[in-house]
Amino acid sequence: MSIDSLTALVRTIPDFPKPGIQFRDITTLLADGAGLRELVDHMAAIARPLDPDLIVGVEARGFILAAALAHALGKGFVPVRKAGKLPGCTVGIDYVLEYGADRLELHEGQVPQGARVVLVDDLIATGGTARAAAQLLREQGASVLMALFAVDLPDLGGRQTLEEDGVATASIMAFAGH
Amino acid sequence: MSIDSLTALVRTIPDFPKPGIQFRDITTLLADGAGLRELVDHMAAIARPLDPDLIVGVEARGFILAAALAHALGKGFVPVRKAGKLPGCTVGIDYVLEYGADRLELHEGQVPQGARVVLVDDLIATGGTARAAAQLLREQGASVLMALFAVDLPDLGGRQTLEEDGVATASIMAFAGH
Repeated sequence: MSIDSLTALVRTIPDFPKPGIQFRDITTLLADGAGLRELVDHMAAIARPLDPDLIVGVEARGFILAAALAHALGKGFVPVRKAGKLPGCTVGIDYVLEYGADRLELHEGQVPQGARVVLVDDLIATGGTARAAAQLLREQGASVLMALFAVDLPDLGGRQTLEEDGVATASIMAFAGH
Repeated sequence: MSIDSLTALVRTIPDFPKPGIQFRDITTLLADGAGLRELVDHMAAIARPLDPDLIVGVEARGFILAAALAHALGKGFVPVRKAGKLPGCTVGIDYVLEYGADRLELHEGQVPQGARVVLVDDLIATGGTARAAAQLLREQGASVLMALFAVDLPDLGGRQTLEEDGVATASIMAFAGH
């Protein structure tokens, strides 16, 4: 299956979550067995040569591809969650969004000092959440080898911002516009 | 890796999310590459002979194992989410919890009539959420072949309740107590 065929499985939902946003919905791709396998296999082909120790996924949609990728590579999966969701002792980071603030947390010790991690999310837009997650991982002494996304919205500049932070990035698909 | 070794990778966190609850935290298992692979491979060995069309995972922790399992089997993954999270048109079900009520939603048409599905979650306790998800899937005309869990808390009776609803169940690990 080509990247074009994968891209064709993504549907666009106008005005979600608010007017003017064209939401790129990958659930239609995930529901296609051949599409899901191909997408994860493309991600694995990019991540495997980096030889990561751990694959980190951001709640909630990021869990989907991060876990499938971790299993495909035989590596561990670590979740980054919103405040108060993880049951054990956590370390966290507060960050500013377009409207308001949020907090991401990670179980203390689950990303050891020196760990080589690939950060995964389904989509990168402005990159605020991914930047915060990458910073949190670095604060634990981890090496963030790459931030890897299924979908990039390049017009929103998120990957560029991550690269300016010194985080390598990659995506499988890209869509113009917001 | 034996089931006992997998079980040993699960940690118990006392008094989360409230006093008296012994929370079984599988993130320590998921973070172990060999453990994650073995857990998903055990689940795949159970699900594969059922020949499902789709693997359905319940937000948020259920996404992790459902997506890894779907990829391992080469099947599609469909998310069941809390109200208002899915961007497309949805069908839903309201259900009662021990304290209050909640709602689960599914993208309309993503589980077609006659689809053969395996429902996956990380843990079954009283089974309220899994029962609601199974009912929602059946209301779409799907055949729920099995509800499959990483961890069962048999003293809470969730699997028994699902079986009484006519849903076959399985789990990889079990822990006594609450």
